[in-house]
Amino acid sequence: MSENTPIDEVARPDAPPPEGDGQFAEDQTLTPEFVRSVSDAIEAEDADAFEGLTNELHPADVADLIGLLHEEDREALIALLGGALPAEVLAELDEDLLEHIIEVMGPAKVAEAVAELDTDDAAFVLEDLDEEKQAEILSYAPIEDRLALRAALDFEEESAGRLMQREFFASPAFWTVGQIIDRMRGTEELPDTFYEVFVVDPAFKPVGSVPLSTLLKSPRETVIETIMISRNMRTVPVTMDQEEVAYLFEQYNLISVPVVDDAERLIGMITVDDVVEMVREETHEDMLALGGVEADTGLNDTVFETVRSRFSWLAVNLVTAILASLVIALFDGAIGQIVALAVLMPIVASMGGNAGTQTLTVVVRSLATKDLTASNATRIVLREALVGLLNGVLFAIIMGALAGVWYFASGWGGQDDAMRLGLVVGVAMVVNLLCAGLAGILVPISLQRAGADPAVSSAVFVTTVTDVVGFFVFLGLAAAVLLPAAS
Amino acid sequence: MSENTPIDEVARPDAPPPEGDGQFAEDQTLTPEFVRSVSDAIEAEDADAFEGLTNELHPADVADLIGLLHEEDREALIALLGGALPAEVLAELDEDLLEHIIEVMGPAKVAEAVAELDTDDAAFVLEDLDEEKQAEILSYAPIEDRLALRAALDFEEESAGRLMQREFFASPAFWTVGQIIDRMRGTEELPDTFYEVFVVDPAFKPVGSVPLSTLLKSPRETVIETIMISRNMRTVPVTMDQEEVAYLFEQYNLISVPVVDDAERLIGMITVDDVVEMVREETHEDMLALGGVEADTGLNDTVFETVRSRFSWLAVNLVTAILASLVIALFDGAIGQIVALAVLMPIVASMGGNAGTQTLTVVVRSLATKDLTASNATRIVLREALVGLLNGVLFAIIMGALAGVWYFASGWGGQDDAMRLGLVVGVAMVVNLLCAGLAGILVPISLQRAGADPAVSSAVFVTTVTDVVGFFVFLGLAAAVLLPAAS
Repeated sequence: MSENTPIDEVARPDAPPPEGDGQFAEDQTLTPEFVRSVSDAIEAEDADAFEGLTNELHPADVADLIGLLHEEDREALIALLGGALPAEVLAELDEDLLEHIIEVMGPAKVAEAVAELDTDDAAFVLEDLDEEKQAEILSYAPIEDRLALRAALDFEEESAGRLMQREFFASPAFWTVGQIIDRMRGTEELPDTFYEVFVVDPAFKPVGSVPLSTLLKSPRETVIETIMISRNMRTVPVTMDQEEVAYLFEQYNLISVPVVDDAERLIGMITVDDVVEMVREETHEDMLALGGVEADTGLNDTVFETVRSRFSWLAVNLVTAILASLVIALFDGAIGQIVALAVLMPIVASMGGNAGTQTLTVVVRSLATKDLTASNATRIVLREALVGLLNGVLFAIIMGALAGVWYFASGWGGQDDAMRLGLVVGVAMVVNLLCAGLAGILVPISLQRAGADPAVSSAVFVTTVTDVVGFFVFLGLAAAVLLPAAS
Repeated sequence: MSENTPIDEVARPDAPPPEGDGQFAEDQTLTPEFVRSVSDAIEAEDADAFEGLTNELHPADVADLIGLLHEEDREALIALLGGALPAEVLAELDEDLLEHIIEVMGPAKVAEAVAELDTDDAAFVLEDLDEEKQAEILSYAPIEDRLALRAALDFEEESAGRLMQREFFASPAFWTVGQIIDRMRGTEELPDTFYEVFVVDPAFKPVGSVPLSTLLKSPRETVIETIMISRNMRTVPVTMDQEEVAYLFEQYNLISVPVVDDAERLIGMITVDDVVEMVREETHEDMLALGGVEADTGLNDTVFETVRSRFSWLAVNLVTAILASLVIALFDGAIGQIVALAVLMPIVASMGGNAGTQTLTVVVRSLATKDLTASNATRIVLREALVGLLNGVLFAIIMGALAGVWYFASGWGGQDDAMRLGLVVGVAMVVNLLCAGLAGILVPISLQRAGADPAVSSAVFVTTVTDVVGFFVFLGLAAAVLLPAAS
């Protein structure tokens, strides 16, 4: 706390309040003015000023601050801090920043920082590096840290094994509340914070749990077995995917969960504070996938990385767009004779695309929350088909009428032709919105059954269906119905 | 527990294990077979069989089960259970089911069930009803419940006041660990579960917190002030939006947070288990909004409700599609002379739409996680423009070459015309992908600055831009460059 450091840019009250004093805007983000004064301090190589500005910040806010700095300022900051960021800040950095920061810090400093962290946080810092880099950093770590970290990193990414911490408090069922409290007061190796005592049988299999609040409310002589919750005891196998772990926490309002090995023995614990962020991440992954963006991209990737990761998805889209335009090319003769078809065809395709995206979004979400299951799939498919059909009919009437009137008013054809064109638009609309509803639900369900992620690549299949069907039905019908009449 | 009830459909072991026995599929959802045997029990009006099948289920699973039943079975089940669902099941139902269930149960039974719940859960059950219905139900509730519930419902929906529970444990800073534990053992009105003791000053303002695990680890004579965490103490004003509350929990890994009134006095507590589901909900709202679906829709809405809620968004899309087709109509003369333009124009528009959606998705996500703030907005806008430009150049080369070759090979024109067409496609692609990148970030940022939700309605603006720009630049250039040459 360098209270006597003169800082010109920012007015600081004598006793800074725990939050605020101009660092945070109303929406809880750091203000541009504050970020600028931090940049200035870094560029002036004034470590005391930096410390004075940031010593009241939570490590998570410092991590955000570093994300908001320019790249050269980030590097200058690390140099200013003696070549390393604090370990707890490292654990809060976004993945897209971490790699670069680790590069700048160098293996020895990273190893030093990582040794200060819990295994789950340390594994988070290292997991995105390639194996060579990981090995290099671990070679600088003390032997016991190295072994624990290797064990954590050996579990698959996004598995319960990666998420869990190895520290927890377990008790046999016959202990009393008093015995447990005495034991807690005497033990050094307890986790920093925990919320439940796990009750285990002689084989170390979890059989129940006691929330700490229950423990505190109970008299010392109470036997654990009489107050433990054993009904619906949830345990998590070490290999479980983090998405499933998140689902358990959400479904059963869990606060912590015991992690077990193949023999169902308790080996670790996952706590809810690690799950909150994960729930957001998992849902964002679905959202990004639907938007055609790779999951592990962020605002701090380089322009080159971003171009590359977006390129691949756009290339897939190009292929499907060419497919759709080949359908159009089939009917170039009809378009040559009735240019109105070229004007109207994107409307039919666009409505189908939007209706398909609506259904797809609802379905991907319902699959993620497990509201859509094998038990109600058939019913929901029929429901979506019916919704597509009904909206198809409504928009067929609206757009059919509009198209007919517009065609007639433009003087492109007679009343008969106009009615026929309206009819063609209407039928194409009904067929395309029905197909959109069906594709919107059948594509993600099929992908899921095939073991794929329903969010990834569903969108491209669905819009391919709606484009191809939309153009084919509209132009095909138009060619069949209008051309003989027009000629 | 009706162990002696004969149940034909399901084989149940003598001592049912805590999880499984065929109720759950591998993906943790209820199996169709299990749902069917529950339906059968309900249709046979066999209350014992229903009880036997479901007594091991968590209330959250029972709520899911009810969602999976057909509507008539739901009503039959309520009748079978004496006209009411258990209160804890009611609290776990999806919003789209709740209204119907409450209708079937009737106000008296609902009031009875609601009285058993904590205020936050009770408010959840009642909040989506209209005021008249709420008043009717509350009139059946005992006076003290009625007052507490009215107070909870008076807070705005999705505010901290709605989320908080009024039960918490607070302590002055001068108490000892022993005093607190004795007090907890003697007090009846403690919350069911809690994770922290809030430390308050004489004005009942929160000044720190002590995790229960710290309390348990500390000797009885320890003074609270010496173990409390006061640095970066977070409190939540009762009016704070739940999205901001969720952000605080996620950013600072909170487990519970004190809620304060205007005078900064402690009046309630929000715990993390209520936040996990909310984080998913808030993110899903963004995802649904981007997909053009209203946030409060679910699989159990009626077909009519679904058609209506989807219709409005499709109607907006129809307007923008018509706008785009009016742009096409401007150039009908050019299309009539060169039909290839009609074939190629959707490709340019579609690539722009996809690139815009990519940027939009990343931006909406970054705004939600507060990674994109006033401090880095300019830099990220330039970055997205550059990404759009670079991908535009790449796809201009690819698609320009393809279009030229295809045009030449189709025999529609000579080598010169083919080169010009390729050039037109290329330039239109560059311009549209650049505009897509800019629209993808500027639209949601502007909406947010204007106080609107950037997820809602961004998509329609962005695709309007990419459609209009795509068609206009491509067809306009083609008309300017190709028509004189072709004539």
